[in-house]
Formats: sequence, C-alpha cells, structure tokens
Amino acid sequence: MRDAAIPMTTVTLAHGAGGRASDDLLRRVILPALGTSTERALCDSAVFDSPGGRIAFTTDGFTVTPLFFPGSSIGRLAVFGTVNDLAMAGAIPHALSLAMVAEEGLAMNVMRRVLEDVGAASAEAGVRIVTGDTKVVGRGAVDKLFLTTSGIGVIGPGTPPLSPERARPGDAILVSGTVGDHGVAVLAARENLSFSPTVESDCAPLADLVQRLLAAAPGTRCLRDPTRGGIAATLNEFAHGSRAGIEVDEDTIPIRRPVRALCEILGLDPLYLANEGKLVAVVDALQADAALAALRCHPQGAEACILGRMTADHPGTVVIRTELGTHRIVEYPTGELLPRIC
Amino acid sequence: MRDAAIPMTTVTLAHGAGGRASDDLLRRVILPALGTSTERALCDSAVFDSPGGRIAFTTDGFTVTPLFFPGSSIGRLAVFGTVNDLAMAGAIPHALSLAMVAEEGLAMNVMRRVLEDVGAASAEAGVRIVTGDTKVVGRGAVDKLFLTTSGIGVIGPGTPPLSPERARPGDAILVSGTVGDHGVAVLAARENLSFSPTVESDCAPLADLVQRLLAAAPGTRCLRDPTRGGIAATLNEFAHGSRAGIEVDEDTIPIRRPVRALCEILGLDPLYLANEGKLVAVVDALQADAALAALRCHPQGAEACILGRMTADHPGTVVIRTELGTHRIVEYPTGELLPRIC
Repeated sequence: MRDAAIPMTTVTLAHGAGGRASDDLLRRVILPALGTSTERALCDSAVFDSPGGRIAFTTDGFTVTPLFFPGSSIGRLAVFGTVNDLAMAGAIPHALSLAMVAEEGLAMNVMRRVLEDVGAASAEAGVRIVTGDTKVVGRGAVDKLFLTTSGIGVIGPGTPPLSPERARPGDAILVSGTVGDHGVAVLAARENLSFSPTVESDCAPLADLVQRLLAAAPGTRCLRDPTRGGIAATLNEFAHGSRAGIEVDEDTIPIRRPVRALCEILGLDPLYLANEGKLVAVVDALQADAALAALRCHPQGAEACILGRMTADHPGTVVIRTELGTHRIVEYPTGELLPRIC
Repeated sequence: MRDAAIPMTTVTLAHGAGGRASDDLLRRVILPALGTSTERALCDSAVFDSPGGRIAFTTDGFTVTPLFFPGSSIGRLAVFGTVNDLAMAGAIPHALSLAMVAEEGLAMNVMRRVLEDVGAASAEAGVRIVTGDTKVVGRGAVDKLFLTTSGIGVIGPGTPPLSPERARPGDAILVSGTVGDHGVAVLAARENLSFSPTVESDCAPLADLVQRLLAAAPGTRCLRDPTRGGIAATLNEFAHGSRAGIEVDEDTIPIRRPVRALCEILGLDPLYLANEGKLVAVVDALQADAALAALRCHPQGAEACILGRMTADHPGTVVIRTELGTHRIVEYPTGELLPRIC
C-alpha cells in the first residue's frame, strides 16, 4: 500500500495534508528537484553545529508573477533574495529554509521546474536548503505558488559592522552595476512586451562580491540590495539612517539602453525599479577607488561605478544633479509601481 | 513630507512596495503590535551572537481559515507551530522570523489583531521575532493573510539525539493530552457549528514541557507534535522510521467528550485530526513512569497518558486494539480531511 503511486500531474489538497501524498511529494518531487537526498531532510527541523561567531538571520516572501521571466524565476529569486539579505549584513550564507504555499490544481511540472531552479540557485550560491514546509490551499486561495525563504549566515570576525548610521559626509556611494533590469524584465514578461535585445533579470547571488568588497574596503559603512522601491528607496534609507544628505550625478547612473527606452515610453523612473543582483555601498572616500576596483574585478560587479556621495548639506534628503545641471529631489517611493515584482 | 499620514484603515499594495507606506506600516502597526521597539528591527537581517553548540532551524507556512477561532488564531499558531517544531528537536527557541503575505483590502485592524497575537504568543513562549517581511498582493491573489515563521533554537549539550530510528520494540509511547481539539475547533468555527462546552484549540508552546520531559527521561527516543494528519500520521512516521511496529490501546486515547461526539456525527476519526499543543513521545520503557510524571506535573501535560508501545510484531505498521478487543490498522492518512487547518 505504501508504495502505491499517487498521481503526480497536478498539486492536490492531499499533497498538503501531512499524510502519504505529502510524503510522496517530498520524496518524489521536492527532494530530487532540490538535489537533496538525505533522510534527515524529512524532519521538521534541521539540526547542525552552530556556525559560531556572529550570525545573521533573515526571511523574505516571494509572490512574483509570472513565475518564470527572462533571466530568472521565482525559485532563483527566493534563493538569491535571501542570500543577498544575508550578504548585505556582511554574512556568508550557511543554511536556507523553503516554505511553499501552492494552489490546488497547479501543474506538478511547474512546481518541479521552480524547485529545480531553487536547487540550481542554491548550488550556485553555495548554500543548502536544509528544511522546508509545503501547504496546499484550494483554488483561488493563492495565485499559483508563493515561496518564503529564510536564511542563516555567518559573519566573519573581521567584518565591519554595517549600518547606515555609520555613513558620514564625504563617503562615496557605489552601485555594482546597471539599475532597473529586474523590474523591466518582469514587467515585459507580464505585459507581453517584447523588445530587442531582451532585458533579463539581474537576479544573482552577491555574497561572494560582498566578501571581495569588504576585503578591499574595510571602511565600508553599509550595504543594501535595492530590490522593491529600487535605488530611490535605498538611497533614501541611507540618507534617513545617516542623518546626512546624498548627492547623485544623474549621468553616472548605469542604465541599459532598452531599460531607459522602456522607461521613457511608459513614464517610469529607473531609480524606482527593482533590482535583484545589485548592491549599493557607502564606502569611506579614501577607499572608494579600491572598492570600485574590487567590484569591477568580479563578474557581478563588472559595471560598477561611483554614483555619488554623502554630504553635510540637506540632511535626510537625496538630491540628483541632472544632466542639464539642475537639481531635483529623489523622493522616497510612496505608491506601488509594479506589484508582485518579487 | 515624510510624516504625512498614510491612511491605515486597510492594507494597500503600497504597504508592500518597500517605500514610505511600507515603512509606515512597519513603524506604526507591525513593530508596536509585536512589542518590538528597536531600530535594528528595521534591517532586512537580524544580527546576533551565535548561540553556540548545536542549533535547530525550521520553517512553517500558515494558511488557516478562519484567521481567528476558539482558543487561538493564525498569529498564535504561527508562533507556537515553529516553537514546537524546534522543541521536537530538543531545542530551546532562540529567535523567530515572520513573513506575511496580505491581500489588498484586508482590514488593518485584522492585521493588527493577528500581529498582537504574534507578539503575545512570542512573549508567552519566551522568544523574540527578530526579523520579518511583508508582501501585499492584489485582491484574489491570496485569501486574506498567510504567515510563514522560521525559527532558530539551541540544543543543550546534554540533549539526547531525537529520531524515530532510535525507537525500539518495548519502548513506551506517550501523548501529552487530549487529541483532536484543534481540528474540531477550526472545523466548528469554519462551519458555524456550535456546541456546549465549546471546544477550543489546544494551541500552546511546548518547549518548556519538552525540557522537563528530557530531564526526567533522557531515554526519550523521539518526539513529534501531531499537527496535520493527527496522531495517525505521527505514529505511522514513528513505525516507518523505526522499522518496528506500534500497538495502541483505543481506550487509552484521551479525547474530549464533545470532540468524540462531533467525530461520531460527522464520521471523522479523531486520530486524524490536527493538534497544535500536544506531543507524542517514544520513551525507554524503564523511564515511562518518570516521563509520564514529568508531563503530568506541567500545565501543558496534565492529561498525559501512555498510549501504547513499540513492538517487534508487524514492523512499519500501527495497530490499534479496539475497546471490543479486535485489532485494526491505523493507516497513514491519504487524503485531505480538513484543508487549511494550520
């Protein structure tokens, strides 16, 4: 009886009931797709030796639609999003958890493909999914599939404390590459816009890049991955947290040509678009060149640049110097540009 | 501008956008309701000294409907569910994370009440919510509010390894109290069934109870909280994991009278109903009495009893001896009795 095959073409309520179908889903779909083979993975809790030192702990829910889009998917996003939150605290990712809520009737192949992406992304980021949970809800109670990942990371003893409060006037502000790619990739997939070349999501793990940056520039004050709300939100958080002002030069902001073009057509501001594989760093001005060189040596930071600086003027406010020489304030985002971008 | 009040009567997409409304929601609703006041709570990652030793890490999604039901709510369930998963690994809960996915238009008072329950439950369990995430999706993309909690716990140096593989024939099987209360409480709330006395969910934190049990009975082989799938699923997992059989005496299973009555009317088997504040333990037979005494001394274990035993007969199978003296097999649950029970 135990080995009787339960149909595996769609996700059913029984797959979330904690009985035989749940067990089958775990053994036949989830663990193989994740590349996890151990029996220990079947327990509710993962148990391991504490990594020691200081640790970072984070969580993020993912509701992006569509589930797959140019360059990435909800599975990759969930892994890299959590890896990157750990990285922004200066931590090296140690272990991740994965909780799924699936809609009854979801094609099993869709769940499998998402999980294969989770597995591949974990391998790419050098971190394991050590525990998880699956719930299935009736049709209409959730839109296809939502994921929540949590992560534990280890902060090395030499890592500087990272916090916007540590930023001070004169510090340099760096970005690790082009902005707005993820937002445009998801928007284009959702609205069936096609343009050439295709804009792909920048979704990528940043923990290794951060370690290189911190080694080259221990005077790094704070890091943030500019996801929802884009670099506009990140810069405002830095200005607010540091009680200093920020000045950005508009013509230094790296933006891909098709991203800029689409923003012009649709009236979007690329500063407010989500990124999923970029970081913004505030660095001691004396180490700005070393930081820039470290970022540019790394595949994830090849297009890094210095975006602007912290200033004693207009504390708490982000000002952009436009290409025409005028100034405008970069407001903290207030509304919702693109729901379900991550 | 930053202090302009954003209406807080319903949850809007802007509250999940990572901008000013998200910040307002966090500062004005989430942190006060949780009883968390520190600025550090505003970072994506919580950073703390590693608790050392061995740690347990777990995650669980919560999709229960309705959000409030006799004796508990999704907020309490989310905290205690994760605390209990840690407890079943022998761990003392150290830190929790909370990720929410809310539906646009949800009454802010509902979110606030849920979060107040999360805060109160965390205080009751002696653990802090140290990090979190909030997403808002459009109407119809999620049913009101889903939560995902993850947790880190510390396993003390004297704690025995806990795993069904360690159970052996002759071991005693204990349950910490009545079964089926949570399942019946949610079912009754959902279907507007009323009966007297009201059955309340047994939702409760079990970490303290587990520590008392392990101190009294270090020969505890394994623990499990019988949530989805009820004690039928738990006993089958123990039989399967140990490669031994299980024998249960039907007349020893503690079931409240109204739970039994409702099960008879609706044709439900209480062994398959979810519990949220109970544990099932396999304990060395020589320590069974000490274990039982330890459980009964604790408010969460006052109605504990010995349910049955592991046996060398019928390996992998759970057999119940009925009140009439006959035997029947307790099958591993196959379908879904009550979707969205947790």
